[in-house]
Amino acid sequence: MSEPLRIGIAGLGTVGGGTLKLLREHNDLLRTRCGRPLDVVAVSARDRTRNRGFDISDLRWHDDPLALAADKEVDVVCELIGGRDGIALKLSEAALSGGKHLVSANKALLAENGTDLARLAEKNRVQLGYEAAVAGGIPVIKVLREGLAGNRISGVYGILNGTCNFILTAMHEAVRDGHARDFDAVLEQAQALGYAEADPSTDVDGTDAAHKLAILTSVVFGCPVNFPAVHIEGIRHVSALDIEYAMELGYRIKLLGITRETSAGIEQRVHPCMVSERSPIAHVDGVFNAVVAQGDFVGTTVLEGAGAGEGPTASAVVADLADIARGRALSPAFAVPADQLTQRPTAPMERHVGTYYIRLMVVDRPGVIADIAACLRDEQVSVEAMLQRARNPDEAVPVVLTTHETEEAALSRALAKMDALDTVLETPRMIRIESL
Amino acid sequence: MSEPLRIGIAGLGTVGGGTLKLLREHNDLLRTRCGRPLDVVAVSARDRTRNRGFDISDLRWHDDPLALAADKEVDVVCELIGGRDGIALKLSEAALSGGKHLVSANKALLAENGTDLARLAEKNRVQLGYEAAVAGGIPVIKVLREGLAGNRISGVYGILNGTCNFILTAMHEAVRDGHARDFDAVLEQAQALGYAEADPSTDVDGTDAAHKLAILTSVVFGCPVNFPAVHIEGIRHVSALDIEYAMELGYRIKLLGITRETSAGIEQRVHPCMVSERSPIAHVDGVFNAVVAQGDFVGTTVLEGAGAGEGPTASAVVADLADIARGRALSPAFAVPADQLTQRPTAPMERHVGTYYIRLMVVDRPGVIADIAACLRDEQVSVEAMLQRARNPDEAVPVVLTTHETEEAALSRALAKMDALDTVLETPRMIRIESL
Repeated sequence: MSEPLRIGIAGLGTVGGGTLKLLREHNDLLRTRCGRPLDVVAVSARDRTRNRGFDISDLRWHDDPLALAADKEVDVVCELIGGRDGIALKLSEAALSGGKHLVSANKALLAENGTDLARLAEKNRVQLGYEAAVAGGIPVIKVLREGLAGNRISGVYGILNGTCNFILTAMHEAVRDGHARDFDAVLEQAQALGYAEADPSTDVDGTDAAHKLAILTSVVFGCPVNFPAVHIEGIRHVSALDIEYAMELGYRIKLLGITRETSAGIEQRVHPCMVSERSPIAHVDGVFNAVVAQGDFVGTTVLEGAGAGEGPTASAVVADLADIARGRALSPAFAVPADQLTQRPTAPMERHVGTYYIRLMVVDRPGVIADIAACLRDEQVSVEAMLQRARNPDEAVPVVLTTHETEEAALSRALAKMDALDTVLETPRMIRIESL
Repeated sequence: MSEPLRIGIAGLGTVGGGTLKLLREHNDLLRTRCGRPLDVVAVSARDRTRNRGFDISDLRWHDDPLALAADKEVDVVCELIGGRDGIALKLSEAALSGGKHLVSANKALLAENGTDLARLAEKNRVQLGYEAAVAGGIPVIKVLREGLAGNRISGVYGILNGTCNFILTAMHEAVRDGHARDFDAVLEQAQALGYAEADPSTDVDGTDAAHKLAILTSVVFGCPVNFPAVHIEGIRHVSALDIEYAMELGYRIKLLGITRETSAGIEQRVHPCMVSERSPIAHVDGVFNAVVAQGDFVGTTVLEGAGAGEGPTASAVVADLADIARGRALSPAFAVPADQLTQRPTAPMERHVGTYYIRLMVVDRPGVIADIAACLRDEQVSVEAMLQRARNPDEAVPVVLTTHETEEAALSRALAKMDALDTVLETPRMIRIESL
């Protein structure tokens, strides 16, 4: 039997604890599969004495994560601390510079510093693994980088944030069951269930999904990670009314991350989408994640699974560790060597062409529809359908429109004009319709 | 730039031709991704002069595939000939024995000879790749062997044959659209469209799916490939009437391959199943394949994509080639080294416990139902529901039953007793109901 792979874990929260448990529980299994033991030898966390429900007394303890990175008896450092910079970044740099492999579950870190870390890993001839950073337990990085290596990929889209998907699913089910609930109420429930954090902004405002999308973009298009180029909108503005109209129009509302090659460059965007209720992704519900890739030879490939949580994330961390243990190392982190990652132009969102759902709250009064229609006509936006069911003379009623294909810039101008109308009582809401 | 990986392709049919096209079209892309060129240098096929729509004049030609395996300028042999033994086996053995990597798309070969070939590969320290043998373009072997390496997998099931799924989907759509069509009519259409072969038996009788299932079983349970242990039933007996009843009961009929660990051993089975129309696999339609794995840490992971065809299969062949080019070789073919593959007992199908759908054609006459009910009662099979809608006194009418959980042996005895009744006009049909 070969020498053990000696693992140091920094961070013993949900993911670190899960990883430790998995490596202990499946030590024999992994030894057989990898040809050598995968042994955790050292850990670092904030508080040594905290009761975590598992024993760490047989592991070397480092108060300072940087000491873990310097530990001569450690071959791989698992950075499971989190945060886009600070100690997580310092630890990662120290580990790679010191010739240790690095496995990270940290999407913010990878989205902000991925290219630099990849360069550092290659320079030091060690592996940078981050399977756990995108879509939790779904081995999406491995599939895109290795399983579909023979394909030019034209685009990838997916449900990349379980919290948002849980909230949108719950809102949909509430409307379906006849007791519509708005975003805030469902968010509270998600927080009570542990599916959303006390400060939910990273999830519900789309940042977390955007981090993951930026990483995926780099893997499939061979460009440096470019998180600032992601157009991001969250789900706070999605109302029960929008869910209701979506159902009526044959759609479901999902927060998608979409990256694709367009004639104007790479388009990266995270925002609520209306997708046909007949599309497979419409039925990926609750905290599940899904990723859909379009390859030129393979066609459409769909991956679905648990996007977060202790077990799934640990599973992804250990997949990277198993690859390193098997000596399957030294393939480039983002599919091509870091110095061959090629900058690609960013397709500006104003140039995006698509179809749109618009919801307005208007005063129910003759002439209102004509005014709205004029705003659209003036910007050459062509209406596909219009719904105004409720009648409530001189009071607020919703009006819903869907458009034919139009450029986003024109639509934005039309929305601004509508917003300026006296009879339009709230900021018009827009949701992009995606035909996937 | 490192030395090229020199590839020899044996067999220039759909898969071989597709692989050659892909390697040519994406030569630059693959060179960047793998750090070295992937060059086809030699080919072997039946007829050198046949017009294939692509040029092979710049490639070394071998009339005899065994000469390709002996070609000193070839590093990897792609066995894309097909057939469970014969020349495909001889070529594979010769390539591995001669110290060449082998990439095969041949499920029959792997299902019958996989363990021996894995042993031979390890002995000669070369790689055996067979991603293309299971579920076409879906990188299911990579996901199970590497992406979920940290999990004990309790079971895998999937739609593994595109021909059967196309036929069952078409039968379903016909019933839904009010013009029911039976198996034979739809098979003819599938043949006309090129989705079924002139001799469709390998597909429609379940053999092809069983080959793939036997390979999956070995990968997830670490046992030698045991194709003879697979219980196989095809879809020829599925009638439009069954599809109609399935819809009425909230089910869809799918040909599934299922492998799982039970207290009696490993259960491997391929047969038509009724699955809830709310389960994700119910909506995998047409020639698409899907594989669902249950891991103890990761939970449920679903993969979906094109299960056959030139492009998808070539994509899978090239994924293996890319791994070999990157030097990601020498991991065991079936997840653990061949000499550590452990025989596992086969769970006998008679001991299978499940729920069942039964369809009978009976004479519509008082007392018939009582006789049928007695057959079930005598074997302690408990009825969940019974449907007899048509009335046609003294003529044949269908009667449909679903059962509560029962052991298959008891159900079989009950079916035999029903079959012996004068009032039962055709062999009773049974379809297992799977709650997935």
